[in-house]
Amino acid sequence: MEERLKKQMEFALEIDKEKNIFRQTHLSNHGRNENDAEHAWHMAIMAYLLKEYSNEEIDITRTMIMCLIHDVVEIDAGDTYAYDIEGKKTQKAREDAAKERLYSILPEDQKKELMGIFDEFEENKTPEAKFAHAMDNLQPLMLNDSNGGADWREHGVSSEQVYGRQGRTKEGSEKLFELTDQLIQENIKKGNIKESTSRQ
Amino acid sequence: MEERLKKQMEFALEIDKEKNIFRQTHLSNHGRNENDAEHAWHMAIMAYLLKEYSNEEIDITRTMIMCLIHDVVEIDAGDTYAYDIEGKKTQKAREDAAKERLYSILPEDQKKELMGIFDEFEENKTPEAKFAHAMDNLQPLMLNDSNGGADWREHGVSSEQVYGRQGRTKEGSEKLFELTDQLIQENIKKGNIKESTSRQ
Repeated sequence: MEERLKKQMEFALEIDKEKNIFRQTHLSNHGRNENDAEHAWHMAIMAYLLKEYSNEEIDITRTMIMCLIHDVVEIDAGDTYAYDIEGKKTQKAREDAAKERLYSILPEDQKKELMGIFDEFEENKTPEAKFAHAMDNLQPLMLNDSNGGADWREHGVSSEQVYGRQGRTKEGSEKLFELTDQLIQENIKKGNIKESTSRQ
Repeated sequence: MEERLKKQMEFALEIDKEKNIFRQTHLSNHGRNENDAEHAWHMAIMAYLLKEYSNEEIDITRTMIMCLIHDVVEIDAGDTYAYDIEGKKTQKAREDAAKERLYSILPEDQKKELMGIFDEFEENKTPEAKFAHAMDNLQPLMLNDSNGGADWREHGVSSEQVYGRQGRTKEGSEKLFELTDQLIQENIKKGNIKESTSRQ
């Protein structure tokens, strides 16, 4: 097998490990914890289905591959829960090292390309990155809401925390933030999300 | 929430069930069985990474969404193992009913679009469908090979059976079929795939 294809196949095999990285979110119907590969699959399909709601025109191919690979670094760095303050402190250093190791398996041109797409997601400035983040927020919100907010209740999450993260959905999609806001308000009313005294 | 978005979100939630449909393939490092969502995620990334090897020019967005949704019908119809002769007899009827139920959750225009992409995959005539099939073959071959051919050995699969399925990879990619052929030959030599007396 020639060198280029060998590297591509090595990367393809390496990322299989993402299926063993489990998240805090649970599957619908009170299922097991979700893993990163399933989450990314779900996000990419949702990006395709909901692209009409992006605030700005997006390159859907770029958005989809961004969704598909955005968590690859967690193979080495592990999943950092959205509301884990201690974990968040070391997250960037852990993920930077992982990024270098993993994307370096690829041929140079693809390393550069995919690392660029990963960095673009992290920087969250382009319309594609903002819409991918909206999916990264909406997908677990949808699952958690379908399970009666069990994940929020388990972690004692407050409305301030939820809005701190989910509020950024409006940068990608005003329309999907309306839906997000409605779901959060319903879950506050039901007592699944603790109401903060000061809302962000 | 307006009707259109409601239908899109209902579909997005419904396909979550694909994460509970397990395949015969095992994850690398002798892991657990793989599920359909993980398989689809892996195929879509591989399609993006390996698109340069397609025999014909492909629309990569269409190929990726095809990879991502091609197994959605198994939510109702279940997974039919590639070498399950009895299951294969009823597979089409089961999958047709599932297709109608699932895609009908979507707004009419998206039902038509996604069902069209699903049918295109099944008909396997366009360059995109042929390349998506090449990924559908190569992805489990890669995992199985990485596990010392354990899935072939467990099911007593013959070279004739393997070539019957994997041989079609050449319709999508001559180059990736060369790799496929090499991997199959190595696994025949190691006794992981039984050599058939007559090879197809």
